[in-house]
Amino acid sequence: MKLVIGDKNVSSWSMRPWLVLRHFAIPFDETLIRLGRPESKAQILEHAPSGKVPCLVTDSGDAIWESLAIMETLAEQHPEHAMWPRDAAARARARSISAEMHAGFADLRRDMTMTIQTHAPGTGRTPEALSDIARIEAIWRDCLSMYGGPFLFGEFGIADAMYAPVVMRFNTYAPELSDVSRGYVECVTKVPAVAAWIRDAGDER
Amino acid sequence: MKLVIGDKNVSSWSMRPWLVLRHFAIPFDETLIRLGRPESKAQILEHAPSGKVPCLVTDSGDAIWESLAIMETLAEQHPEHAMWPRDAAARARARSISAEMHAGFADLRRDMTMTIQTHAPGTGRTPEALSDIARIEAIWRDCLSMYGGPFLFGEFGIADAMYAPVVMRFNTYAPELSDVSRGYVECVTKVPAVAAWIRDAGDER
Repeated sequence: MKLVIGDKNVSSWSMRPWLVLRHFAIPFDETLIRLGRPESKAQILEHAPSGKVPCLVTDSGDAIWESLAIMETLAEQHPEHAMWPRDAAARARARSISAEMHAGFADLRRDMTMTIQTHAPGTGRTPEALSDIARIEAIWRDCLSMYGGPFLFGEFGIADAMYAPVVMRFNTYAPELSDVSRGYVECVTKVPAVAAWIRDAGDER
Repeated sequence: MKLVIGDKNVSSWSMRPWLVLRHFAIPFDETLIRLGRPESKAQILEHAPSGKVPCLVTDSGDAIWESLAIMETLAEQHPEHAMWPRDAAARARARSISAEMHAGFADLRRDMTMTIQTHAPGTGRTPEALSDIARIEAIWRDCLSMYGGPFLFGEFGIADAMYAPVVMRFNTYAPELSDVSRGYVECVTKVPAVAAWIRDAGDER
């Protein structure tokens, strides 16, 4: 099984399934394609019919693309791991907030792009980005209070992986956050899989 | 169980889970909120914490939001229906193209907005929208040739529901399409659940 990803410094979508594979210790090969170069698109299209990363290529050569579809498929293939919460109501909520991240928060993504190597506290705070952040803080607060933390549904899972690139943005741009959000940001940053991704991102030149 | 939706004429996201519920004859109540009015947002927030439609409210009062999360949850609750394809590789592909629709094709959505009552052939054909259409035609062509049609994975399911609002746009704006795409558009338009939604949309004033 091979995961095709973009630069770890900037490819927020690649980060998500990579974290899930790494956190749950599922063996996989990694193919990293440098983005923003003349040859990038053609290189991605060799693996992913959508022309985008991430893309999981199975041992039988099938491509599975889009972070959320990859993680749903992994969850289905590995029922021994609670990638989604075991409780049905919690699982429905985890899917709701993961899909909300998948299709939403375009303003935050535009105004506070993920660049893990960068530290630019105080920048990117457009009204639109701050509005997205307010909604994200509400999502985190609800989950952490309903399920007791330290992760959104107790243990680290797909929903946390979906929001991990937001955590990276908060580390870079340091917007004002509630204590609850700051605690969650610290907690996610310390997850070994997340720390490994950050380390790799820092090594990219 | 209650599905909170927006105007059937324009709410493409609402259409998707509504079609799945109706097509698979799952009983549900419908709460329709007229969009674009001063009171719309407050009305939606009474049901959906995201402030967006659609939102499924379970009998125990839990909210499940985002079309894709609602449909994943329905598929899980109703294993007797093949909402996703039964075959694992087909299911992974169905999830990939559904997630690609969920997060993508922003240009098509902007330049050819869904307004079922409108017939405006020839308009909306920006280069960006046409590029999205080319990708959608490739997705349809691949699926229809791999699985033999008449729907993307044989029988009507979640992936077809995800692309049904694109079919509505093609009916409205009539972009040039391949014969294969035109056949699929006709086929989806005739699905009883789709025809029922179009009828309801036509009655909205």
